[in-house]
Amino acid sequence: MPARQGVWQLPQRLSLHHGGSLERPRIGWRLAGAPAAPVIVALGGISAHRRVFDDAQPREGWWHEVAGAGRALDSTRLRILGIDYLGGSGESSGPVSGGVFPSVSTYDQAQALCALLDHLRIERVRAIVGASYGGMVGLAFAERYPERLEQLLVISAADRAHPMATAWRSVQRHMVRFALSAGRGAEGMEVARALAMTTYRSPEEFAARFGHVPRQMDGRFVFPVEEYLFARGRAYAARYLAESFLCLSESIDLHAVDAARIATPTALVAVREDQLVPLADMRALAARLPRARLHELRSLHGHDAFLKEAGALQPLFESLHEPPSMSQHP
Amino acid sequence: MPARQGVWQLPQRLSLHHGGSLERPRIGWRLAGAPAAPVIVALGGISAHRRVFDDAQPREGWWHEVAGAGRALDSTRLRILGIDYLGGSGESSGPVSGGVFPSVSTYDQAQALCALLDHLRIERVRAIVGASYGGMVGLAFAERYPERLEQLLVISAADRAHPMATAWRSVQRHMVRFALSAGRGAEGMEVARALAMTTYRSPEEFAARFGHVPRQMDGRFVFPVEEYLFARGRAYAARYLAESFLCLSESIDLHAVDAARIATPTALVAVREDQLVPLADMRALAARLPRARLHELRSLHGHDAFLKEAGALQPLFESLHEPPSMSQHP
Repeated sequence: MPARQGVWQLPQRLSLHHGGSLERPRIGWRLAGAPAAPVIVALGGISAHRRVFDDAQPREGWWHEVAGAGRALDSTRLRILGIDYLGGSGESSGPVSGGVFPSVSTYDQAQALCALLDHLRIERVRAIVGASYGGMVGLAFAERYPERLEQLLVISAADRAHPMATAWRSVQRHMVRFALSAGRGAEGMEVARALAMTTYRSPEEFAARFGHVPRQMDGRFVFPVEEYLFARGRAYAARYLAESFLCLSESIDLHAVDAARIATPTALVAVREDQLVPLADMRALAARLPRARLHELRSLHGHDAFLKEAGALQPLFESLHEPPSMSQHP
Repeated sequence: MPARQGVWQLPQRLSLHHGGSLERPRIGWRLAGAPAAPVIVALGGISAHRRVFDDAQPREGWWHEVAGAGRALDSTRLRILGIDYLGGSGESSGPVSGGVFPSVSTYDQAQALCALLDHLRIERVRAIVGASYGGMVGLAFAERYPERLEQLLVISAADRAHPMATAWRSVQRHMVRFALSAGRGAEGMEVARALAMTTYRSPEEFAARFGHVPRQMDGRFVFPVEEYLFARGRAYAARYLAESFLCLSESIDLHAVDAARIATPTALVAVREDQLVPLADMRALAARLPRARLHELRSLHGHDAFLKEAGALQPLFESLHEPPSMSQHP
């Protein structure tokens, strides 16, 4: 089951939700799994990309613990479509180093995805499964293009960002812009990613993992959790463009969909320990959506549960593998 | 009841807990309230200072909602001693702009306070009331100098920092060091303070206060919570030295006292919404302290409750005003 992938250029201009347009943007995509099987669109956080899974190189797929042969999203029974986000650091159109790029909405991502489905002659997908930013894009898609999907599965994403999450991301963007203005963008990305990591996980996980005793390094005290966060920050800065981070981080905070207009059957997955998307916001979204069912999980991994809790997610994904006639309301 | 205040220079070298020493450091102090009344030492967060309250200029006191004539800490019945922390931006010895300063422990602050009590001929204080960093200093003092205080009241401070709180502060310190290295320390302080503010308050408060709709400013979207945080950041950067922030922020994370050795009767106040000092840590501290009683509050203000919840704190402070013979175990 070889994957098909490509970079497709839209034949027309893409008008952007927040103003301006992109002249024939490119969309990087990858479709992998059982030939002629139903299509699932799998969308992750802002750093995710078109390679959802890759059985040949498992570590290269951003959702390799969840998707693939025999996994919760079983590629022997489904085809899984992944994309690079507009504005990101992948093959899709996005900023270049030192360049400017317009503000991108989740509606714009949905519009690009819809055009890609046309190009790939996929009339209707079995589901969009979106987590974090991908869940926001899924909600925007379901509001705008209800005829193109059977169901929606949203993990740790709401109809708009929580002000505390916006606060944390605003601080990250300030750090990165400051560092760019000093000609040291990558260092700003290290600090921003270190902060982001604190919001992706839970205090309980950090308490269990990290001790209190610092080491002396470079003439100062360095704490165990600090070593971890900045190692992750350096790894991220090496592979993600600062300008792309600014674009997609802002896109999360600009996200605002009208839940009452989303008639697609929707399964919501909330994680009680998620600091970025509090349970109360997921419950409020479930109440506003006309056809939603809310599943509440517990996970030490907080917002990152979608990457880590394959076992807990598996039962929720099972119905996606059945023919539509047998499929339950998710 | 005029306040007495001064800057006193220790007659000897102060050996520091983490190594090194300070040659005859200065301690800024202020003692205000009813003459000959029992003394309460009031210690706040790292940005607090010796002016706990000032009935003539109420806004100048960092605890003006809690301390003063007729307040929960009633200056007509008590004398209230405040200090500037070693390493801070006040009158006590601390770093200068561009300079280096050794790591300062809460034990060092306690040692300086004890020397100051000698100088002021205060043999024994009615209580140390400490919140946040001041609570840590109070715990360190009670462990080292139990004969110098009758009781201890600790608000939102534990025997050591939570790894998630250390994580957030580490990010702040990285940001400030980065900005200093770029010759723009004040800008780093703005971002660091903006982040710190997110940790001082609760997500529930932000959800209630801030909307989602951004404004266009300087060619980009600015969110309501972002405007607030960076206004606070700018105000802080204008009055606090970056090098002092680094010193005292690190001091919080280096704090580690042996609770089992603190025999002083201790009242602990925990705030359930406090993100920096989780309730579980306060309960664990209460279990380790030989003579502790734990009071749990709810407050939208989170870690900042000690600045905002004068009404809820008042009953806990009442016993501090009574003569020792009538004083209850706090």
